[in-house]
Amino acid sequence: MIKTDILIIGAGPTGLFTVFEAGLLKLKCHLIDALPQPGGQCSEIYPKKPIYDIPAYPEILAGDLVDRLMEQIKPFEPGFTLGERAQILDKQEDGSFVVTTNKGTRHHAPVVVIAGGLGSFEPRKPQIENIADYEDNGVAYMIKDPEVYRDKKVVIAGGGDSALDWAIYLADVAAEVSLVHRRNEFRGALDSVEKASELAKLGKIQLFTEAEVKALHGENELKSVVIKHKDDSKGETYVETDFFIPLFGLSPKLGPIGDWGLEIEKNAIKVNNAKDYQTNVPGVFAIGDVNTYEGKLKLILSGFHEAAVMCQYAYQLINPGKRFVMKYTTVGGVEGFDGTKKEAKKEVVQSIL
Amino acid sequence: MIKTDILIIGAGPTGLFTVFEAGLLKLKCHLIDALPQPGGQCSEIYPKKPIYDIPAYPEILAGDLVDRLMEQIKPFEPGFTLGERAQILDKQEDGSFVVTTNKGTRHHAPVVVIAGGLGSFEPRKPQIENIADYEDNGVAYMIKDPEVYRDKKVVIAGGGDSALDWAIYLADVAAEVSLVHRRNEFRGALDSVEKASELAKLGKIQLFTEAEVKALHGENELKSVVIKHKDDSKGETYVETDFFIPLFGLSPKLGPIGDWGLEIEKNAIKVNNAKDYQTNVPGVFAIGDVNTYEGKLKLILSGFHEAAVMCQYAYQLINPGKRFVMKYTTVGGVEGFDGTKKEAKKEVVQSIL
Repeated sequence: MIKTDILIIGAGPTGLFTVFEAGLLKLKCHLIDALPQPGGQCSEIYPKKPIYDIPAYPEILAGDLVDRLMEQIKPFEPGFTLGERAQILDKQEDGSFVVTTNKGTRHHAPVVVIAGGLGSFEPRKPQIENIADYEDNGVAYMIKDPEVYRDKKVVIAGGGDSALDWAIYLADVAAEVSLVHRRNEFRGALDSVEKASELAKLGKIQLFTEAEVKALHGENELKSVVIKHKDDSKGETYVETDFFIPLFGLSPKLGPIGDWGLEIEKNAIKVNNAKDYQTNVPGVFAIGDVNTYEGKLKLILSGFHEAAVMCQYAYQLINPGKRFVMKYTTVGGVEGFDGTKKEAKKEVVQSIL
Repeated sequence: MIKTDILIIGAGPTGLFTVFEAGLLKLKCHLIDALPQPGGQCSEIYPKKPIYDIPAYPEILAGDLVDRLMEQIKPFEPGFTLGERAQILDKQEDGSFVVTTNKGTRHHAPVVVIAGGLGSFEPRKPQIENIADYEDNGVAYMIKDPEVYRDKKVVIAGGGDSALDWAIYLADVAAEVSLVHRRNEFRGALDSVEKASELAKLGKIQLFTEAEVKALHGENELKSVVIKHKDDSKGETYVETDFFIPLFGLSPKLGPIGDWGLEIEKNAIKVNNAKDYQTNVPGVFAIGDVNTYEGKLKLILSGFHEAAVMCQYAYQLINPGKRFVMKYTTVGGVEGFDGTKKEAKKEVVQSIL
């Protein structure tokens, strides 16, 4: 059982900055995220895209924003449970919570903060009747370890960066790579499109455009896919394969959090923004893009403010009756749990004579 | 008459960032500040001090924070009325406002935002009975143009950086400089203390410690001051002088804004934090350290969030019935009023064949 003061569901920018604000109040944090690395969407979806509305950053790449936040919270030694989804919330008799992930990891804390962004990102699945039957026997919706595909036959579907980039990568790894896309145009970085085009000309990628995988065949495990062409005169194409990997992007879902008894409105969690960003379940807060209230702006900078406010109330829940005197960091400095101390140079006080 | 969409009272970090959020909504801003430069306290009081709790800045000097914000808002071409204090708020028949400064400059806008921080900083004055009589005839509480003191006799009082630094500076300019401080120890940067000490030894600064200026003499204009020593046996010292400059620091005052009919609580302006940060006067908002509500944190990052939310409502006031579709800057880019355009590189959409 992992124990902490504040358990944060979601390790995007808002979740990460919560560690800092909690740390100033001497509270320890642990974060759970379904993605394999911290940073949420910023790391997973657009690390190389510039953001222009982070205060005092005229421009910062999303990935750099995450790096800066990780550096800022380092002194407060956050714990991470990554690649696991927070599944079950159990309120204990003493008012504290146990949160269990889909892999069974258990976490115990007096305060839970949901900073889940737009939710967990689930792969979009194609409409193929029996696709679920092959989900552990040849069908995958994301590539975790490309070595799995070494010397195998692979059919990838999709027309975006993921489909292009993995087709390119696997061209050198797999025995055979087919790329199926329902249009003629691909949507991706210029060099990816060019590279894939080149590999297609060299015969290293078999390309099917204006085409869709419509059926899967094989007993117990996948053996072949059926490709249907837009142009009816082309009929259908059978392709023998070991794997079918549709890469149609990720779609945000609130996921299991939706079953935690929290008041939900427009696929987001209702909170008391006039006060503490607490949900209808006392001790459970929601901050950042995952929450909603009148006039809510889904901006990273709003999540930062909500984190700061929420931590003050978490402090009161964890230390009832105790008063924390807030000191400005420029006056009081920042004392890490790792023994580090940052502070402004003190003025000297000395006799002039 | 200066005309704008949003008139911002106070050019500290919160006021400056408001220009950016307003700019994204195509609203123009003008700022009024009593200080001679933008940045508020950050520029005036602690430009060289590090701040540790700006999100994604593990450490940033207050002066650099202001520089970054100025760079970020540049495309939105804010106007500035600096060195003037917003004095009078006049509501017009059409619901808009005219704000007049202490120097008579008039500004007209449909929305007024008070981002006045802790208020305007007023000099702390010593308790000397007739000091007000000399306020334009020998007594000054801040030094605006040191050339005024060339070849004059000057008595400075105070024991902090300002008193030390000006005594050092004027030692080369004035005919005679006396520095009076009620303690033996000075509180300032190490090199200032050492430099002042050196000049005292060389006789370029006359030093009176454990002493206070207790009386002022002179008909129509200041002629001399009376210094009283802590050690009674030393009696009193008369010093002939043209100027007496007490530099006892600045004390924040809400100032004339306190008379604008706004609901005030604990020397701050009450706002509706559950919605739009509007005050009890429709069309007048208050954001940043100048406002108050349950759980208010006087943090720069809270001012940033409040600015973003407030601008959305200002947009609705200025464009009634019109809907503004918010685009993330990483998606829609930032289009400046100066013709500049920042945006992420677009993905290419092209045929692979």
